[in-house]
Amino acid sequence: MAKAIEEYVRSIPDFPEEGIIFRDITSVLQDADGLHLAIDEMQKKLEGLDFDIIAGAESRGFIFGSALAYNLKKPLVLIRKKGKLPCETIEESYDLEYGQATVEIHTDAVKPGQKVVIIDDLIATGGTVEAACKLVERLGGEVVKLVFLMELEGLKGREKLAKYDVESVIRYPGK
Amino acid sequence: MAKAIEEYVRSIPDFPEEGIIFRDITSVLQDADGLHLAIDEMQKKLEGLDFDIIAGAESRGFIFGSALAYNLKKPLVLIRKKGKLPCETIEESYDLEYGQATVEIHTDAVKPGQKVVIIDDLIATGGTVEAACKLVERLGGEVVKLVFLMELEGLKGREKLAKYDVESVIRYPGK
Repeated sequence: MAKAIEEYVRSIPDFPEEGIIFRDITSVLQDADGLHLAIDEMQKKLEGLDFDIIAGAESRGFIFGSALAYNLKKPLVLIRKKGKLPCETIEESYDLEYGQATVEIHTDAVKPGQKVVIIDDLIATGGTVEAACKLVERLGGEVVKLVFLMELEGLKGREKLAKYDVESVIRYPGK
Repeated sequence: MAKAIEEYVRSIPDFPEEGIIFRDITSVLQDADGLHLAIDEMQKKLEGLDFDIIAGAESRGFIFGSALAYNLKKPLVLIRKKGKLPCETIEESYDLEYGQATVEIHTDAVKPGQKVVIIDDLIATGGTVEAACKLVERLGGEVVKLVFLMELEGLKGREKLAKYDVESVIRYPGK
């Protein structure tokens, strides 16, 4: 019988700190079947959806965003950490456990009225993705769906993103 | 007539400093046809090649590596900046214009005798990719080809990587 996608994820207890189970996607990617299945399952979440653009958040969002953009023949827009994009950008900052992070998007990456799907590997607290949504909306785009490979339900990212259509392939009850 | 891949690259003169022409790939990715063409042209460089693994260097190598791994049904191994991979790693440092950078690979990512293709968006001086090759080789892997979307010939990365089979889709004579 074919392996389920969950079986490809390597779980590392007490990393990076005690009580946290780190969900490692490199074990999914390092297996040709795992990689295929992960992207196929994410792609199913987009079946029948009318949209114009896939946006991926640096850097693991690029991995899934790129293959989905290729398969579905859509443009891929990069949401990057501050200072990495060479042309005119806008930025959004968000809180981390310690300090802040800032992400940017090119101002010409999304046109008013365009429908955008945002892709990332993981939804935890939802901070990065919320910032990504704000960037798309400030350019006049509409965020029509958020698709993740994994969701850590205990961190309640879905509540923070309640106004969006959030889909994830694997849902873990904890943190 | 269909546009050539070169026409999708946005060139930014005097960025990040005077005399340098920055070659921006976001304009390729932001166009569904550009993205498709870039990946298809890179894939052509792998036609008929016998290999086991695609390795991509953080973070733009992930973009092209992932779609190629999906299309060719190969595993994708991530070569990441120091501190990002959660399991046991080995590392290699290399010189930048100012200072040093360090990249890592999981020790279980490549098995002795496996044939590895390394993918990145750009070959400039070749420092990052040379470090990536060393990581693969220290794990017993064989680097059978390096494929880039763009090459800045004036920076002589190809000379540094003379012992490898280097292929690039777009070659710019300058820096």
